[in-house]
Amino acid sequence: MPLNPETRNKLKQVSTATITTALFKRGLRRQMIQDVLPLDPSKPTMVGEAFTLRYIPAREDLNPITVFHDRGHPQRKAIEECPPGAVFVIDSRSDARAASAGSILVTRLEMRGVAGIVTDGGFRDSAEIARLAIPSFHHRPSAPTNLTLHQAIDVNVPIGCGDAPVFPGDVVVGDADGVVVIPAHLADDIADEAVEMTAFEDFVTEKVREGRSIRGLYPATEEATRIEFAAWRKERRR
Amino acid sequence: MPLNPETRNKLKQVSTATITTALFKRGLRRQMIQDVLPLDPSKPTMVGEAFTLRYIPAREDLNPITVFHDRGHPQRKAIEECPPGAVFVIDSRSDARAASAGSILVTRLEMRGVAGIVTDGGFRDSAEIARLAIPSFHHRPSAPTNLTLHQAIDVNVPIGCGDAPVFPGDVVVGDADGVVVIPAHLADDIADEAVEMTAFEDFVTEKVREGRSIRGLYPATEEATRIEFAAWRKERRR
Amino acid sequence: MPLNPETRNKLKQVSTATITTALFKRGLRRQMIQDVLPLDPSKPTMVGEAFTLRYIPAREDLNPITVFHDRGHPQRKAIEECPPGAVFVIDSRSDARAASAGSILVTRLEMRGVAGIVTDGGFRDSAEIARLAIPSFHHRPSAPTNLTLHQAIDVNVPIGCGDAPVFPGDVVVGDADGVVVIPAHLADDIADEAVEMTAFEDFVTEKVREGRSIRGLYPATEEATRIEFAAWRKERRR
Amino acid sequence: MPLNPETRNKLKQVSTATITTALFKRGLRRQMIQDVLPLDPSKPTMVGEAFTLRYIPAREDLNPITVFHDRGHPQRKAIEECPPGAVFVIDSRSDARAASAGSILVTRLEMRGVAGIVTDGGFRDSAEIARLAIPSFHHRPSAPTNLTLHQAIDVNVPIGCGDAPVFPGDVVVGDADGVVVIPAHLADDIADEAVEMTAFEDFVTEKVREGRSIRGLYPATEEATRIEFAAWRKERRR
Amino acid sequence: MPLNPETRNKLKQVSTATITTALFKRGLRRQMIQDVLPLDPSKPTMVGEAFTLRYIPAREDLNPITVFHDRGHPQRKAIEECPPGAVFVIDSRSDARAASAGSILVTRLEMRGVAGIVTDGGFRDSAEIARLAIPSFHHRPSAPTNLTLHQAIDVNVPIGCGDAPVFPGDVVVGDADGVVVIPAHLADDIADEAVEMTAFEDFVTEKVREGRSIRGLYPATEEATRIEFAAWRKERRR
Amino acid sequence: MPLNPETRNKLKQVSTATITTALFKRGLRRQMIQDVLPLDPSKPTMVGEAFTLRYIPAREDLNPITVFHDRGHPQRKAIEECPPGAVFVIDSRSDARAASAGSILVTRLEMRGVAGIVTDGGFRDSAEIARLAIPSFHHRPSAPTNLTLHQAIDVNVPIGCGDAPVFPGDVVVGDADGVVVIPAHLADDIADEAVEMTAFEDFVTEKVREGRSIRGLYPATEEATRIEFAAWRKERRR
Repeated sequence: MPLNPETRNKLKQVSTATITTALFKRGLRRQMIQDVLPLDPSKPTMVGEAFTLRYIPAREDLNPITVFHDRGHPQRKAIEECPPGAVFVIDSRSDARAASAGSILVTRLEMRGVAGIVTDGGFRDSAEIARLAIPSFHHRPSAPTNLTLHQAIDVNVPIGCGDAPVFPGDVVVGDADGVVVIPAHLADDIADEAVEMTAFEDFVTEKVREGRSIRGLYPATEEATRIEFAAWRKERRR
Repeated sequence: MPLNPETRNKLKQVSTATITTALFKRGLRRQMIQDVLPLDPSKPTMVGEAFTLRYIPAREDLNPITVFHDRGHPQRKAIEECPPGAVFVIDSRSDARAASAGSILVTRLEMRGVAGIVTDGGFRDSAEIARLAIPSFHHRPSAPTNLTLHQAIDVNVPIGCGDAPVFPGDVVVGDADGVVVIPAHLADDIADEAVEMTAFEDFVTEKVREGRSIRGLYPATEEATRIEFAAWRKERRR
Repeated sequence: MPLNPETRNKLKQVSTATITTALFKRGLRRQMIQDVLPLDPSKPTMVGEAFTLRYIPAREDLNPITVFHDRGHPQRKAIEECPPGAVFVIDSRSDARAASAGSILVTRLEMRGVAGIVTDGGFRDSAEIARLAIPSFHHRPSAPTNLTLHQAIDVNVPIGCGDAPVFPGDVVVGDADGVVVIPAHLADDIADEAVEMTAFEDFVTEKVREGRSIRGLYPATEEATRIEFAAWRKERRR
Repeated sequence: MPLNPETRNKLKQVSTATITTALFKRGLRRQMIQDVLPLDPSKPTMVGEAFTLRYIPAREDLNPITVFHDRGHPQRKAIEECPPGAVFVIDSRSDARAASAGSILVTRLEMRGVAGIVTDGGFRDSAEIARLAIPSFHHRPSAPTNLTLHQAIDVNVPIGCGDAPVFPGDVVVGDADGVVVIPAHLADDIADEAVEMTAFEDFVTEKVREGRSIRGLYPATEEATRIEFAAWRKERRR
Repeated sequence: MPLNPETRNKLKQVSTATITTALFKRGLRRQMIQDVLPLDPSKPTMVGEAFTLRYIPAREDLNPITVFHDRGHPQRKAIEECPPGAVFVIDSRSDARAASAGSILVTRLEMRGVAGIVTDGGFRDSAEIARLAIPSFHHRPSAPTNLTLHQAIDVNVPIGCGDAPVFPGDVVVGDADGVVVIPAHLADDIADEAVEMTAFEDFVTEKVREGRSIRGLYPATEEATRIEFAAWRKERRR
Repeated sequence: MPLNPETRNKLKQVSTATITTALFKRGLRRQMIQDVLPLDPSKPTMVGEAFTLRYIPAREDLNPITVFHDRGHPQRKAIEECPPGAVFVIDSRSDARAASAGSILVTRLEMRGVAGIVTDGGFRDSAEIARLAIPSFHHRPSAPTNLTLHQAIDVNVPIGCGDAPVFPGDVVVGDADGVVVIPAHLADDIADEAVEMTAFEDFVTEKVREGRSIRGLYPATEEATRIEFAAWRKERRR
């Protein structure tokens, strides 16, 4: 079930905050990847299907610097196989004491057309990664090579990331507030609802800036508000 | 005991660092709201009397999305009742896994003339809030709706925020180092002392920049320093 | 064993990420000071020999505000004794609830030609410190005076800082990813190797930006890559 | 809505594990007070309505040792007012660095017929409290007087305890696994269901001890299991 | 490579402390499952090959109470498939806020001849599990059903547990100090060395109890100590 | 200033809870070693002057297993030099991921007449240590050899332990609630006051067990209580 291009476009125009509310209405309260932020909060919203990499704690004898000579090493393999348009999501067990990846690998993802990268650990070369066009999200910068603490073990399996479940193909959205995971089968619905909610929130924000109280306005418990909003949408063609 | 306008002005010109030292001299060592920072550190210093909101952990059956249809909901009520010039302080139990508030409510506070907002949790729509004129302080951005984890229960009662006690009417000051809480009855004294201390610190900084050792200068254990400082103040009219 | 000026220059041109890999190859996996970041990530790389200050938890009766009247107070003594070119490293027991130091002391270090300052706690006056030329690294801003929680007890002894061992004279390097500690006797070797590695990483980055796969390129498992790199170095005179 | 004596008796015979499953079926996933254990795990199951005490962080000037000379001090008042049969629940902000209460106050609760005491902080005199007949639950022992960090502020208001919401009158149950909070209006239903579930679990345990596989037995997906269970109940008169 | 019965017997007679030292000598410093303790520390030492279960964070819509009606549910499947003599090791992401398993499943493991069970989360029905003969290890008791936070996703794959890497077939040993993981290919060697070390430690303990200084004795830097130990072994036939 | 034998005896008969209150009255609020408990809570109260050992994070190249061949190794030296009657206190940076010491060294301390041992980390061979007569306190059991994470660096210097300051010669008292540090110059005074307080607390406990309210009794705000207590003391000869 590939991500519908229209859905992708809709999701690019809404916020993770709005999406979490739409998920909350469906009983999903734990889809936010906790304690992960953009390296550059000014980038456009990231949207794409999850492609995952699973790390386990590194055993010293299995992780000399030479492991990368193996072309089949799961980390390197994953970097070359992640589909364009996808978001590369790493389960680093929320451990940022060693890096999840560095600028060369993230640059390669960018070149391959990948839509973004997320770890619940940290990136090295964080200043360089922040300057790339590809959106990137982590807990904090972390210089030590990933071999210090992380051993890549599985590619594109269900993982946990920042206390959220991530299944391959789930739709991952990231902005200045962090990263949210939409179950694949809900993506179209959530996108539609979030676009609607965003229109209303924009209307409310405009009214609040004009000095209006939130009472009866947010939520729109007064009939007058709903009529006013309908007119506003018509005028703005939203 | 409303905040004296002169005291407010004085506090706008001193730092939270200086204030904590003045509090320390009076035996108050825990008035800093821990692990809370400005969304935009370049804003002017925030000063105002505390107006509080207390959250408890949300019970699922009491917190459907429809609770906000109730005009008396404590969160919405508090937003409309917080006095102009006050600082809105939220006890979120230092839990930033769900939002304490979002940009619409903070915009409404700004329109109402509120002096600032603080939570020991996190705000959603954090990029929008950072761009508002009203100073705002939190632990980190957090997209999920507050209903996910927080239930508003009390308005303007004594609370804990970031491990500091906050009583309604206490004077709350925030800058790039975070937020400090001055007990109401000490506000005038602390403001006076902090202004004095700031003059001396500015003098010391100038001398240090000229190459002076801190020995005998900071603190002013040498008589010569005290004489020099008196002359400096006279010259600068401070 | 003073830091070789050539080694200092080399280290200024490499990243902490590259250095941690060189240390990892030598079996040193814990030399990164954990969870410490630059106050201003845009500053040049910090390099210098470690000069240390050790704090223990402050006992209230031994830490009134008047302790600084003692010219021999270890904190103030350390500030005046830290050699030019060194990095001042503070063991604050990873406790940022009170400040490790403020802008006046850091300004004095700058005037004295000190190369940088690091704490695993926090600085007060953080906005001022960020604007100084001297590089500074901490966990987070913290306004309360250091006397609240920290008592300076020892100058220039081996310490722990952010879970890393720091011996006086170790070479400390800091950039946007944080701070790494190179054992003194390895500094020249690590610098040489890091310069070599950096040349290769720059070459790889260029190739990746041209669209090359990392397979066979990073690491250079293919002979062709090694030949191409040799040519690249020659051309760039690196 | 006082706790029905039959409901109390039923709840004494079921486990907190079984109760959390019954709550889970009703969409309540956060009613367990996290990280709180019995001082003496061999005591009978604790059951009673919640009577609450709320602490905020202690401000030093408001909490000299003499505050207890005030008979109206909320902590002492609460101890004398908690109804027999109730469970005394303290919101200590999950902070066990100072005591929530000591053996004298807990002994007084026991004498007054209170059914138990719970804090998400710690008790002092923990060995003495463990030897009392009244069940007690905390995070860990903690000697320092509560005035060090906790200021009693409110009696019998809604609180958070160990990340769970606790409303006065909720039914609190504690055993070796910890403490669970049943919303008052669900207590009768949950008690009935938990008694049923316990009968089935006892049946399953017996069969498993006889060597039976859990397949088809737990849950009872096979008709044969349901028939066998019906016979077992009849025989045991449960 | 099944676990050699002699190796199993040897490992039953040595401590996890001794094993970690033998691993340390081989450069393996992270094989201890951190922060996990026996439910009953008086049980004999647990030894067996790792058989693993991987949990990810539970998504609410995928984890209703009815999931266990599926006989292929990974948790239930794993319980019935774990080989006799093996140790069942669960990756609960060090999250003890919901249970990893309860007494019925652990009883079933005991009946099937499984050698022990370990989670880096917590067990429900902890008092019952402690009374079973099968050794069990967790972080702390936790009543809520596993569906609250954990979704079983993989059986017998490499996992992390308490920050240690665990590969299926690794040899897992547990005693009052916790649980250590021996890479499968090292089990025989480690067992031999640990038996030797234990003999020496017993000798040293005896001598220390007789009043001997540890100087020259522990480690045996003096020739006399080595001669005395050789005699002691002969006499004790160890 | 050696510990007065009478003071030692008095302190053996009072609790750490009572001592923290006496310290609190003198403005000392942070003398409790946080999160440290006895390995065997049934042992008599530990009392002795602090003799300290300071660990820093272990650097791998400086901590091979062979370091103990050096008779001057600070850990082994400290074990042989700690005076009889003293309490051996280890600064392990509150890191229990590797052991602070094991049963052989603790047995040696016991044979040498040392009064107790405390670490803010963990002990290996914890079951054996619990069975020794010498009182021992730690955070939790921890099997890995101390070389894994801890390097002994200083003997008998001021340290932090569990967030409390510990100066050599301070008087350390431990019971089931944990360990408190009395500044050396206050030991006699605190002991006297704690004995007095204990008599009153025993009186209060007796009255509460007889059914008395705490109002007017605890604290003794009523004259009648004070008269009754005087009589009680006379009768009990306390």
